[in-house]
Amino acid sequence: MNHVWSVDPRTGGPVEVVARETAPDEVAELCDRALEAAPLLEAMGRQGRAGLLQCLADALERRREDIVALADRETALGTVRLDGELTRTGYQLRLFAEVLDEGSYLEAAIDHAGATPMGPRPDLRRMLVPIGPVAVFGASNFPLAFSVPGGDTAAALAAGCPVVVKAHHSHPGTSQLVFEVLVDAARAAGAPEGTLSLVHGLEAGAALVAHPAIRAVGFTGSLSGGKALVDIIERRPDPIPFFGELSSLNPLVVTPRAAEERAAEIAEGIVGSFTMGAGQFCTKPGLVLVPGGRSGDALLGEMAARVRDLDAQWLLNEGIAASYARGTERLITTPGVDVLARGRAADKAGFQAVPLLLATSAAGLPEEVMEECFGPVTVVARYADEAQLLAALRRTPSSLTATVLRGDGETELPARVARLCRQRAGRFLFDGYPTGVAVSWAQHHGGPWPSTNSQHTSVGTTAIRRFLRPVTWQNAPGELLPDELRDDFLGVPRRVDGTLRLAQERPAAATA
Amino acid sequence: MNHVWSVDPRTGGPVEVVARETAPDEVAELCDRALEAAPLLEAMGRQGRAGLLQCLADALERRREDIVALADRETALGTVRLDGELTRTGYQLRLFAEVLDEGSYLEAAIDHAGATPMGPRPDLRRMLVPIGPVAVFGASNFPLAFSVPGGDTAAALAAGCPVVVKAHHSHPGTSQLVFEVLVDAARAAGAPEGTLSLVHGLEAGAALVAHPAIRAVGFTGSLSGGKALVDIIERRPDPIPFFGELSSLNPLVVTPRAAEERAAEIAEGIVGSFTMGAGQFCTKPGLVLVPGGRSGDALLGEMAARVRDLDAQWLLNEGIAASYARGTERLITTPGVDVLARGRAADKAGFQAVPLLLATSAAGLPEEVMEECFGPVTVVARYADEAQLLAALRRTPSSLTATVLRGDGETELPARVARLCRQRAGRFLFDGYPTGVAVSWAQHHGGPWPSTNSQHTSVGTTAIRRFLRPVTWQNAPGELLPDELRDDFLGVPRRVDGTLRLAQERPAAATA
Repeated sequence: MNHVWSVDPRTGGPVEVVARETAPDEVAELCDRALEAAPLLEAMGRQGRAGLLQCLADALERRREDIVALADRETALGTVRLDGELTRTGYQLRLFAEVLDEGSYLEAAIDHAGATPMGPRPDLRRMLVPIGPVAVFGASNFPLAFSVPGGDTAAALAAGCPVVVKAHHSHPGTSQLVFEVLVDAARAAGAPEGTLSLVHGLEAGAALVAHPAIRAVGFTGSLSGGKALVDIIERRPDPIPFFGELSSLNPLVVTPRAAEERAAEIAEGIVGSFTMGAGQFCTKPGLVLVPGGRSGDALLGEMAARVRDLDAQWLLNEGIAASYARGTERLITTPGVDVLARGRAADKAGFQAVPLLLATSAAGLPEEVMEECFGPVTVVARYADEAQLLAALRRTPSSLTATVLRGDGETELPARVARLCRQRAGRFLFDGYPTGVAVSWAQHHGGPWPSTNSQHTSVGTTAIRRFLRPVTWQNAPGELLPDELRDDFLGVPRRVDGTLRLAQERPAAATA
Repeated sequence: MNHVWSVDPRTGGPVEVVARETAPDEVAELCDRALEAAPLLEAMGRQGRAGLLQCLADALERRREDIVALADRETALGTVRLDGELTRTGYQLRLFAEVLDEGSYLEAAIDHAGATPMGPRPDLRRMLVPIGPVAVFGASNFPLAFSVPGGDTAAALAAGCPVVVKAHHSHPGTSQLVFEVLVDAARAAGAPEGTLSLVHGLEAGAALVAHPAIRAVGFTGSLSGGKALVDIIERRPDPIPFFGELSSLNPLVVTPRAAEERAAEIAEGIVGSFTMGAGQFCTKPGLVLVPGGRSGDALLGEMAARVRDLDAQWLLNEGIAASYARGTERLITTPGVDVLARGRAADKAGFQAVPLLLATSAAGLPEEVMEECFGPVTVVARYADEAQLLAALRRTPSSLTATVLRGDGETELPARVARLCRQRAGRFLFDGYPTGVAVSWAQHHGGPWPSTNSQHTSVGTTAIRRFLRPVTWQNAPGELLPDELRDDFLGVPRRVDGTLRLAQERPAAATA
């Protein structure tokens, strides 16, 4: 069995063995344990699981220093960013505890028996239940927030689904450490054995997705990686839901008025956004549409000056570094694409990348600039007029985000851009930058293919819907119903005979 | 181009040409028109589309006699059943109008800008928007309720998605007639051209699912048909959501006490359920678990007597008749399966099927009885004790429904059966029969594969969720937001800063 090495991106060298690849029969055993844990985790109830999530958050925070230090050594993302990421991870675990307390996510509905134009209707009661054990694939670029303790894991555990995580090979030591912290905390909180498991290795990941106990897959990664998993799923006797967050170009539009009014501020914002975390965000703006003419020129000048002033940055791993080298070479050699500015050359060891600002014309937008290139590069496409701008946007693939930067109080052009982009993006931003995805109730992090499978989010409270499925009880005796579907239960919002009722609302009779 | 013939199941002969197969370039043109109609249909708003749905229902009812007569000639389902089916179709169109008026389906949420433990959060506003043009595949067994004007079409139009229906070859004349009625009504109601289209033929169906304008597929049909469409979808550059309602065994358990207490009533109920509509329901109980011993013997005797008294029934088409002949032959020749009773032999022309009651043992339950066999046949499996019963249930594939018939006030065994079956069924019934699926708010018609893809329903109000996707607006100026996300809008339930608020709730300031 192969060893799993921890690698330091700042040197490019392996540091130590932190685990070994999980054998297929071990994967099977972990999946079976997850299946056994499922009814017990569900039986903890909403309150029990809310408590569990809070314990997990507390445990991570108690080990903050160790976790951040190891994650920094394995990712070179820097301790400030990783400290913030751990805070985010704790926050999202606690937010899902609130989701459980609030209870709307159950979509509880009761239709009492009665007459209808189609004849008598039986008593029907519907709510969402856990889908079963979930496989979560950790992402390279968020060792804490989209990995072992990340958004998918938090959402799945909240839903009542045991989780088997496939560790990303880019931070196996961090994965192993936070896994151990979480498992200890889960045990102390009374969660069943098998609530959370971890596997290492490509083959283990394939075995995981193929295992009959696994009922859904959460994945954040490349389009090719996602497609490989979909192929495995389609070969199962029982295909299961796959929730992939895959590839996103994130077009950003600067209107002529915005360029005129605030070039320096916008240049700072865009350069900050596409080089943040060494450009390794799924929401990185990869295509920036800038007007032609003098104001556009000034904006480009400001952007170029800032890029030239940037140091080379460390990428997460050898594969991403090689792919950045290939991708930028391909862009640079594309006819019609010019290099506008380069950051300072790499002078240190490891997986370094030089930030890069490229320029092309919106009129003849080459196919090559329509693909996501992970790393600190963006392409500016100049447009001559609105028709050219909208035609270019129509050619962009669907994305997680689309952005428009407006002039003060400007609405007409932004409205037309928004209308067009709403067809091909999950989040539409005004006067902001797409990197940085707040975890909240109204967030959506998803979009039509290739960004995701379009109907669900992987960030924010509604991410829980991915790991639930509806069940309807017909004519069930009260004592065999889940609490939330009994007549006298008032603790969650419910739809009763078609009317939505808030929690705690007392029936009229009780007040009298 | 091939003609499409209307066939009479009662004679087995073709009656008349009602259409011709739609050529691939015509399919493309209809899809393009659907795409053009999409923003206009959405712009009609919730009220506009609610009005549209009501007009469609009215128009169908105005042509009730013609529609029922033609559907009866093409399906042999009888005018009483088809009359009820038309009523159901009108009812579900009007129920979706209520869904639009009520507005919860938008899942509107507003998070105002503010401070969080992770720093400042921008203003985020989320709601569901139409996914785009939808392909709907009509089912053979519901020429009105799951076909051109059926549940998928009603849900998609309500969502704001134009629909292109692939007519089922089993009732092309009915499809064409109701399509014309609906298109006229839609036009009169002010819906854009391209709101609803119809195609005929297998190749047209394949071209439809592959067309780039189509954003989701609703399908009710066989497992093999569904898999063929999934294969086409996976070859698209942008795979789209597929919602298939495919195959369902629908196990039904009779407890020893139930058999003891009310054998005659249960025999009548089961035989009525598995032979209703000539056994051509996706919710037909295909496996009935009956206790051994005297009370079980008595129940079987009652069932057998009733089956022997039944006439042969017409199946929907030649393919289903051939498949019923093959499927029942396979069951009868399976070692361990005995013929308990047959209905009266066929004495008329056409696609006739003789009702059939088979018996086997739960202990050695053969693989062959685990597959759905469309038509008036069911298999009774006798269990010696609870362990045998639960072991048999554990081996059944997932289904749309599972049922337990209890003794008076009995809860212990039903609770254990319910717990087990909840893992593998979307609806769990007590003391009822699974055929007959009420259209309501709390209904769920779905379940893990192979019954469906498990997370959504194709019957009831929540079916609309399949044809929607979330979008979040970040820092959007009020005038560029949809009405339902503006601060001063109070017409739909919304979640504001994490708190669910009912529609029409006045803010405190306004009341003061």
